[in-house]
Amino acid sequence: MAPPLLPPTLQILRRRFSSLVSPPSKVLLYDEHGAPDQVLRAADVPPVPLGDRDVCVRMLAAPINPSDINRIEGVYPVRPPLPGAVGGYEGVGQVHAVGPAVTAPLCPGDWVIPSPPSFGTWQTYIVKHESVWHKVRNDVPMEYAATVTVNPLTALRMLQDFVKLNPGDAIVQNGATSIVGQCVIQLAKVHGIRTINIIRDRRGSEEAINKLKQLGADEVFTESQLDMKNVKSLLGALPEPALGFNCVGGNAASLLLKFLRQGGTMVTYGGMSKRPVTVPTSYFIFKDISLRGFWLQKWMNSDKVEDSRTMIDYLLGLVHEGKLKYEMELIPFSEFILALEKALGKHGSQPKQVMRF
Amino acid sequence: MAPPLLPPTLQILRRRFSSLVSPPSKVLLYDEHGAPDQVLRAADVPPVPLGDRDVCVRMLAAPINPSDINRIEGVYPVRPPLPGAVGGYEGVGQVHAVGPAVTAPLCPGDWVIPSPPSFGTWQTYIVKHESVWHKVRNDVPMEYAATVTVNPLTALRMLQDFVKLNPGDAIVQNGATSIVGQCVIQLAKVHGIRTINIIRDRRGSEEAINKLKQLGADEVFTESQLDMKNVKSLLGALPEPALGFNCVGGNAASLLLKFLRQGGTMVTYGGMSKRPVTVPTSYFIFKDISLRGFWLQKWMNSDKVEDSRTMIDYLLGLVHEGKLKYEMELIPFSEFILALEKALGKHGSQPKQVMRF
Repeated sequence: MAPPLLPPTLQILRRRFSSLVSPPSKVLLYDEHGAPDQVLRAADVPPVPLGDRDVCVRMLAAPINPSDINRIEGVYPVRPPLPGAVGGYEGVGQVHAVGPAVTAPLCPGDWVIPSPPSFGTWQTYIVKHESVWHKVRNDVPMEYAATVTVNPLTALRMLQDFVKLNPGDAIVQNGATSIVGQCVIQLAKVHGIRTINIIRDRRGSEEAINKLKQLGADEVFTESQLDMKNVKSLLGALPEPALGFNCVGGNAASLLLKFLRQGGTMVTYGGMSKRPVTVPTSYFIFKDISLRGFWLQKWMNSDKVEDSRTMIDYLLGLVHEGKLKYEMELIPFSEFILALEKALGKHGSQPKQVMRF
Repeated sequence: MAPPLLPPTLQILRRRFSSLVSPPSKVLLYDEHGAPDQVLRAADVPPVPLGDRDVCVRMLAAPINPSDINRIEGVYPVRPPLPGAVGGYEGVGQVHAVGPAVTAPLCPGDWVIPSPPSFGTWQTYIVKHESVWHKVRNDVPMEYAATVTVNPLTALRMLQDFVKLNPGDAIVQNGATSIVGQCVIQLAKVHGIRTINIIRDRRGSEEAINKLKQLGADEVFTESQLDMKNVKSLLGALPEPALGFNCVGGNAASLLLKFLRQGGTMVTYGGMSKRPVTVPTSYFIFKDISLRGFWLQKWMNSDKVEDSRTMIDYLLGLVHEGKLKYEMELIPFSEFILALEKALGKHGSQPKQVMRF
């Protein structure tokens, strides 16, 4: 049977789009905020037509970051609108098809990441304007390309944005076993910066200390080891740090502050303990301590895109050289509920969960 | 009887010094740290010879500042050595005599202040190098000349050192009834800056609110009035403040933080509640709030002397014009124990105590 005649406008539209559509995609979406393992569901999305400058990407891998969890819970200030929000914010994929007017040098098979990251990486195929995608090297493990922005870039920026550090200087951080913490240790080492690391007391802390020292940590203390008046006596030959990174809050932030030198700065980028930061007045007045905050979001503005991409290439270069590594677990997309449970801490301490599509 | 012959060296020394000695002085000194009304005692000090470039000053008035109390208690980081420490740090006096080689244009009768302030203003006569003394105008009440450095200069610097403010901008402060707080209100007004003021709940708070409004305060709230979710709804036509001054800590600091705009700065310069500053992690990360400290001490360095003196002249000019005022009580030096008790809060709320010599 001959196809029915279409009106002329639709004929044009059809010529323009029908040749290029994405494959059907599998997505993880949520229609309301709540516990991620309750509200997220897998769904099939029909093929999407590609605009002239769109690129269709087959996703390879995407992590579950704490901020992804917070977005689904509805407690993160920047999040996609409901209903029909797709989870995920960063990840890596492979170019599947490009629109006819795409000017970026992107070919099918190239690895690309959304840069700046954007909502909805937890799906098998994504169609977005070419400007969204940044081509990255494909000779690193895909889980690193999938996770290079949110954590390693945070570590890199925090080392550069607050205090001018010179080789031989020291920094102090808590939550040192976190991925940002591990990146801080390794990036600092690359630049000759010494690190003083605070971790929480737990079974197996000896093992954690050894792991961090293998990454290049100069000193690692558990919180209970710092339950003393003069923590600076523990510094040995290390200089007093002018900069500290806090992702825990509560007691761990107070311990960090005790290490800072006169005029030092503590940067807060997380609050894992869910406790606030508490500071005696004398630290501000007599020690001239500054407290700042870091949010990667400001590096996601359009005027920072080129800088961010340059830094991402640098970071993946370090990964390739073996100078930047952290533990991750690749888990099949189909087992997303298990991955979420692990990311939520329901199976004890687990490495970063990265879904593989 | 003829005087005994002196060896030649002593004869020279005698010629040099014997002609100029200070009158005997009455001082308030302490030999150990402790409660000021316990450890301070009045003592007579014999005449002191003037060096060639020394100036002998008869003190007119000197205040009792909280930092003076803390020095005597031994809890202030910068304090005079024991035993034999003389109390006080700022004050005004009258030139009594100048050494023969003094080059500064100082004549007997001129009003001078130690600038930067220096230890030991609680005495009737002080002999110090001419470089210590800054001549000030004598057409203002002496209690203002005596107190111009520690409090008004703090207010002036805090308005300038942290955030660039333009006419129409707003700042927020707690402890607004303190002398620094009152100076902030008036200096801000001179520069077209609006002020949001937080005071503690107490009997007579209506009167305190009216007093501050008469000084030029745009808004005055008691802490309990701010016990609500959206304090910014109280701003009315005032812009969100980019800068806040905290001299209280605890809840009063938390209330102040709620007013600050995205990217705002809170400067801590005191801790009257003796409670620490407690900040939720989200303020640092998502509101990009910075916490800093101010200590006037850094304006006391030798490289800042000229700047400080220029600012002091400016401040006393404002006093003369009636644009800067605050409540003080002049109390005779002989009643120093009563003055200390009042300064220590043992007689209820009292104005700033200034001893008159």
